Amino acid sequence: MTIVLEPVAHVVGGRAEPTDDDWDKERAVIQLDGSRFNAEAIAGLDSFSHIEVVFHFNQVPEGKVQCGARHPRGNTDWPKLGIFAQRGKNRPNRIGVTVCRLLKLDGTRLEVAGLDAIDGTPVLDIKPYMRDFAPRGEVREPSWTGELMAVYW
Amino acid sequence: MTIVLEPVAHVVGGRAEPTDDDWDKERAVIQLDGSRFNAEAIAGLDSFSHIEVVFHFNQVPEGKVQCGARHPRGNTDWPKLGIFAQRGKNRPNRIGVTVCRLLKLDGTRLEVAGLDAIDGTPVLDIKPYMRDFAPRGEVREPSWTGELMAVYW
Repeated sequence: MTIVLEPVAHVVGGRAEPTDDDWDKERAVIQLDGSRFNAEAIAGLDSFSHIEVVFHFNQVPEGKVQCGARHPRGNTDWPKLGIFAQRGKNRPNRIGVTVCRLLKLDGTRLEVAGLDAIDGTPVLDIKPYMRDFAPRGEVREPSWTGELMAVYW
Repeated sequence: MTIVLEPVAHVVGGRAEPTDDDWDKERAVIQLDGSRFNAEAIAGLDSFSHIEVVFHFNQVPEGKVQCGARHPRGNTDWPKLGIFAQRGKNRPNRIGVTVCRLLKLDGTRLEVAGLDAIDGTPVLDIKPYMRDFAPRGEVREPSWTGELMAVYW
């Protein structure tokens, strides 16, 4: 069974190469597909400070997708973990999900800050960020994540 | 341009019909596709309390997908908003993203609580929830979201 999707938008501008870290300084535009959407599709989205962007790591070759376990970023200081126990891009279906700041709407353009997707990235969905979609209950995570994320944003 | 995905897992159990609200009480299993994955794919995931699940609202017919503006849940007490300014299921690409609790790993089975996806739902990705992927900066959202979400979980 396969699922066929069509990008609803593309990232324009921002970082050109998929380098690690320091993403919060990036500014970019999410440009809706004008053949299917007009400004109505994002009407009222600017009543939210943040959006959740679902995108496709399209620059990862199929052959680089990993299905088993590996060290995050190849760093053996961190444990060997299943691909679904980390958020790296070389993952089955190559889907990224990130919450970033929405700066401005302009027609079918969304100006954003802190999106960790590079210029040209296909966007699969855009959702408003709601506090009620944060985790319910106490959050527990291992210590390596704090080390990896220390300079990510 | 199209993007072809293959589910990495399916939801087994939990709610049978896509009714609204009261999701936190639901228990379900996310069963990995055993033809491609073994327990290595989720090794170490149980060091996280919560996972982010990306799934496909496969029961929404293509013809019901909306691209413009509408009132959330058809409720005219709430503003008319673009489909990307709400999180309803009748959206382009029909992608859902939810953070739920991970109760237990058992081979290629993930036992979860509070997943708002019904029995049989195709799962496109599973990611560990990290606090550092929460919004950076102050979150602002309109008042209707609190009303809609009051009994959601």
